[in-house]
Amino acid sequence: MVNEAAQIEPPRLGEPYLLTPGPLTTSYAVKQEMLRDWGSRDSEFRDMTEQLRDGLLDMLGDARTGYDCVPIQGSGSFAVEAMLGSLIQHDAKVLVLINGAYGKRIAAMLDYLDRDYVVIDTGNYEPPRGPAVTEALLADPAITDVIVVHCETSTGILNPIAEISRAVYDADRRLFIDSMSAFGAIPLDGVRFEALVSSANKCIEGVPGFGYVIARIDALKSAKGRSHSMCLDVHAQWQGFENTRQWRFTPPTHVIAAFLQALKAHRQEGGVAGRGAR
Amino acid sequence: MVNEAAQIEPPRLGEPYLLTPGPLTTSYAVKQEMLRDWGSRDSEFRDMTEQLRDGLLDMLGDARTGYDCVPIQGSGSFAVEAMLGSLIQHDAKVLVLINGAYGKRIAAMLDYLDRDYVVIDTGNYEPPRGPAVTEALLADPAITDVIVVHCETSTGILNPIAEISRAVYDADRRLFIDSMSAFGAIPLDGVRFEALVSSANKCIEGVPGFGYVIARIDALKSAKGRSHSMCLDVHAQWQGFENTRQWRFTPPTHVIAAFLQALKAHRQEGGVAGRGAR
Repeated sequence: MVNEAAQIEPPRLGEPYLLTPGPLTTSYAVKQEMLRDWGSRDSEFRDMTEQLRDGLLDMLGDARTGYDCVPIQGSGSFAVEAMLGSLIQHDAKVLVLINGAYGKRIAAMLDYLDRDYVVIDTGNYEPPRGPAVTEALLADPAITDVIVVHCETSTGILNPIAEISRAVYDADRRLFIDSMSAFGAIPLDGVRFEALVSSANKCIEGVPGFGYVIARIDALKSAKGRSHSMCLDVHAQWQGFENTRQWRFTPPTHVIAAFLQALKAHRQEGGVAGRGAR
Repeated sequence: MVNEAAQIEPPRLGEPYLLTPGPLTTSYAVKQEMLRDWGSRDSEFRDMTEQLRDGLLDMLGDARTGYDCVPIQGSGSFAVEAMLGSLIQHDAKVLVLINGAYGKRIAAMLDYLDRDYVVIDTGNYEPPRGPAVTEALLADPAITDVIVVHCETSTGILNPIAEISRAVYDADRRLFIDSMSAFGAIPLDGVRFEALVSSANKCIEGVPGFGYVIARIDALKSAKGRSHSMCLDVHAQWQGFENTRQWRFTPPTHVIAAFLQALKAHRQEGGVAGRGAR
């Protein structure tokens, strides 16, 4: 891919190509969408929010039925915390598969949220594997949920998500996925999961400012009143979208306009398969 | 003020001038700052974050000593919840002064946070007054903190913040201010307060994507381990800035670049006094 920004803005030719754990380099077309203002309660912007949610669900392909998409203001970690606090039951026992900084962050979040959990930590260079998950779930029937990082941004390791999902559902538990650096580029064909999260500024190549939870509608429905936080309450946010087509609290309007352009480019590139191939 | 965006982009001449409870119309110069990408961990961006925090503290004038500024990703309400969850003690009893939707939202947040509180609700058209606060604080010695909305965005009422602050501190309690639609345009000369919050997209006229808490450094220090939320933990976020000059989690880089331009325009207009005069 050509760095379009550098082509169009010569004085900024020295701009580095960003492949960091934070935001990535985005196209000039994406950034140009931020050159106007939007009223976040206007019907035009409500339509944009719907396109955003719909475009993200489309990436699940046929599997999108039964899921809904709930964007959350803030960084990707805000969406991770929103998912954990809203969709993991208070009396759950969680198995966290850790092989890097982002797995550790999930465990630290569960400390804040006062959820019981155990970990399998395979260090920074080994992915968690299905048989180890199966063994842990057999050994501890109290475990209700498993959480895994799809692609560990800190090391770049792509974890074997399909194998882990099979292990989890064969044992009749539920899988939550932090798919920050994978969603939109790595297909989830045939992977069962309860919910996943990702953010605007990863594989879809938008600018940073929001994340999103994609969850089974059943899970969203049963999350009423569970969240520790008003702003990170996925059920309330979802109900806001469903009932008014609006964000409950001011959204990053410009970031969202840019994201719709990023979604368009993603589709033009051939969707998840095309992006993954690149 | 001229709508510069409409001048420069003829096809979008019909764009409305936004004066809504959400984002406002911003200048073209502000939006143009979003036409490049930034690595959020780079030293250039760390400098920008420092300029942001410093520029906001400057608005307190001489009173800035003893305060620090902690930006929080998300909307203004995220910063409100962060302030409440981090800076209000678990065993506090809070008096919430309500005269509109945003006062009610604070009470609803305290429900999530499981804090004890009472309210004085003067309806949508009457501001809370000092003598009523004095009376309530005399009648209930258990009350430790008072929270007020500076300018009720829902009705536009500017509450008598100096009078309320005197009543609070004469009774030896602490004042928290939701200054969303006032900070940067209404001076706080001589107003004592423990902490206040505002957001990027109000009187400073940036684009939406983050809010900020300005709090007494003593309050920030004593907030360690108190927050209900990792992402909304004001102490941890403050320590992140102090120790690494970085945001703990990916910041909305473009929104922040735009905000620095908005701060510059604010200073050129004569700061808080100049903005308030307009």
